[in-house]
Amino acid sequence: MSDQGEFSVTCPILHQQEEKILMSHGSGGKHTSDLIEKVFLPAFGTSSETLHDGAFLHIDQSDLVFTTDSYVVQPLFFPGGSIGDLAVFGTVNDLAMCGARPLYLSCGFILEEGFDIDRLRQVVARMKDAAALAQVKLVTGDTKVIERARGDGMYINTSGVGVVERAGINPQSIQSDDLILLSGDIGRHGIAVMSEREGLTFETSIESDVGELYSSVRALFDEGIDVHCMRDLTRGGLATALVELSAARGLAMEIDESAVPVDAVVRGACEFLGLDPFYVACEGRMIAFVSSNDGEQALSVLEGLGSNPRIIGHVSGQSGPMVSSKTFLGTRRILDRLVGDQLPRIC
Amino acid sequence: MSDQGEFSVTCPILHQQEEKILMSHGSGGKHTSDLIEKVFLPAFGTSSETLHDGAFLHIDQSDLVFTTDSYVVQPLFFPGGSIGDLAVFGTVNDLAMCGARPLYLSCGFILEEGFDIDRLRQVVARMKDAAALAQVKLVTGDTKVIERARGDGMYINTSGVGVVERAGINPQSIQSDDLILLSGDIGRHGIAVMSEREGLTFETSIESDVGELYSSVRALFDEGIDVHCMRDLTRGGLATALVELSAARGLAMEIDESAVPVDAVVRGACEFLGLDPFYVACEGRMIAFVSSNDGEQALSVLEGLGSNPRIIGHVSGQSGPMVSSKTFLGTRRILDRLVGDQLPRIC
Repeated sequence: MSDQGEFSVTCPILHQQEEKILMSHGSGGKHTSDLIEKVFLPAFGTSSETLHDGAFLHIDQSDLVFTTDSYVVQPLFFPGGSIGDLAVFGTVNDLAMCGARPLYLSCGFILEEGFDIDRLRQVVARMKDAAALAQVKLVTGDTKVIERARGDGMYINTSGVGVVERAGINPQSIQSDDLILLSGDIGRHGIAVMSEREGLTFETSIESDVGELYSSVRALFDEGIDVHCMRDLTRGGLATALVELSAARGLAMEIDESAVPVDAVVRGACEFLGLDPFYVACEGRMIAFVSSNDGEQALSVLEGLGSNPRIIGHVSGQSGPMVSSKTFLGTRRILDRLVGDQLPRIC
Repeated sequence: MSDQGEFSVTCPILHQQEEKILMSHGSGGKHTSDLIEKVFLPAFGTSSETLHDGAFLHIDQSDLVFTTDSYVVQPLFFPGGSIGDLAVFGTVNDLAMCGARPLYLSCGFILEEGFDIDRLRQVVARMKDAAALAQVKLVTGDTKVIERARGDGMYINTSGVGVVERAGINPQSIQSDDLILLSGDIGRHGIAVMSEREGLTFETSIESDVGELYSSVRALFDEGIDVHCMRDLTRGGLATALVELSAARGLAMEIDESAVPVDAVVRGACEFLGLDPFYVACEGRMIAFVSSNDGEQALSVLEGLGSNPRIIGHVSGQSGPMVSSKTFLGTRRILDRLVGDQLPRIC
């Protein structure tokens, strides 16, 4: 009876979730947020209101953005890209999402003993090409080696420094009635990695969308589009980006699922795998919150770059965090943070 | 006969060393240099002449330094410190060695599934304290999770941004007749980590020297000491730092082993373990190349901070990379890059 009493107040499963790192702590979803809120923010003192893809620094007379990401994707090469492309474009995109021009990257390799040096050369060659495309310089680096079976071939960290091109691009700048612009179809990256890892084949090959977003940002700025906030759709996908921004700004958002482009093969793969494409990561797609007057012009700017942009919704006048989505059936569903991890280690 | 012929021209052991990552590629010694020269520099285009602890960036009107390091030390806690202290102080020190005031750090965690969250909190608390001591802000971060047995609890990457306080602190500024100032006794960090890992006990406990070096740099600058170059004595220790700088500058250096302070317990542990203290890592010691007129004043500045500095040698007039060391017996030995790895994963 005494034992039963103890179990009735402390569920061992929940207790364990609080005490140990789970794969879902790296999902970009609810558990990641919990870890940030409960462990990192209390120590490092940043307020969650200012959380963004990078940190704004004012040094001397310069306004800079500084960001970091580690990459642990498996496999290291997948259709359309590699860990090297991801490590360059992912960090470049975080700078771009803050309204900054990406300038310099650092690169830290953690290599597993026994890793093939030719394979390393191939990754480094992909990084070189990606850096050239994104017009950033890899200026400083570090290499550590860990014993066999203590790593998975390689992990890469890239950090980046950029210079602010347009100030005030952040979640707090989102306004009621802003239109939500999506730069292209979603879900390719997650499905490409998953299909390679699991050896799945579909009627046509799905390539990752991994790529740089700065040229899109620059084009929007050059055309004078009134952009308030941007977010790339990495871990947790489109839904997580919307939910996080709605929560950060305290304004409700409404989207229309039929306006969100999903490739037919990606959609089929998601159905087969039991995944919701709204939560599947992209690595070369973003949403931008633009002034309601600028929607059509913003669309034509991105169309001019060859992408397939759509206005997928808007910021409603209602306060309070809430993202509602109009489904294909005409019903509404509320999007929430991902609990658990749909696709581990896709970036 | 034909098979024998093949083996006679390609030694399989050497061949394997060229093709696979070895633990020694992370030692900071010869194999690390080889990897940088043969794989990273050709792709990333930085010239080896400018290699330093960080990269100098000129953005707008600001002169900045940018650096990165990953930390894979085992065990995560050791006498005198933890992976958290290392991750903050190590990157702070790299900025300081470039003559910069450390300002901002990023922090990327790679966590292993199942890792204890309380342990993570302890590491984060050490990082918080270290950042407060070094007066830097942790401004941006990232967390990834890898499956059990794909990591060793945690790996941390920190990157740092600082503002140049004194320009021209780099290997090319080293002059003939410069004095070589060592900030304190060597070898504590490597021996502290090794003793914890291997369960060794000595008559008195050896604590790591992990700590920040910016306050020493700042004091030297404030007193107007003519500092030409600095280097912290991490992987590969004092000898590797000297050999690298001699090679980068193309000037010979001479040091006197009897002038180099080594704690008696550290010396005894090194003898017991078959290690050369000149190659054992420190994490809170540096060498500074100062104008020959400023040696005494530089000593008194560092003594005023409570450390145990010494002039250990000088830059000779001879050209060509060469570090010669006068031994306790009065003979000379030539210091070379470490081949292999004395103490893996000490940072």
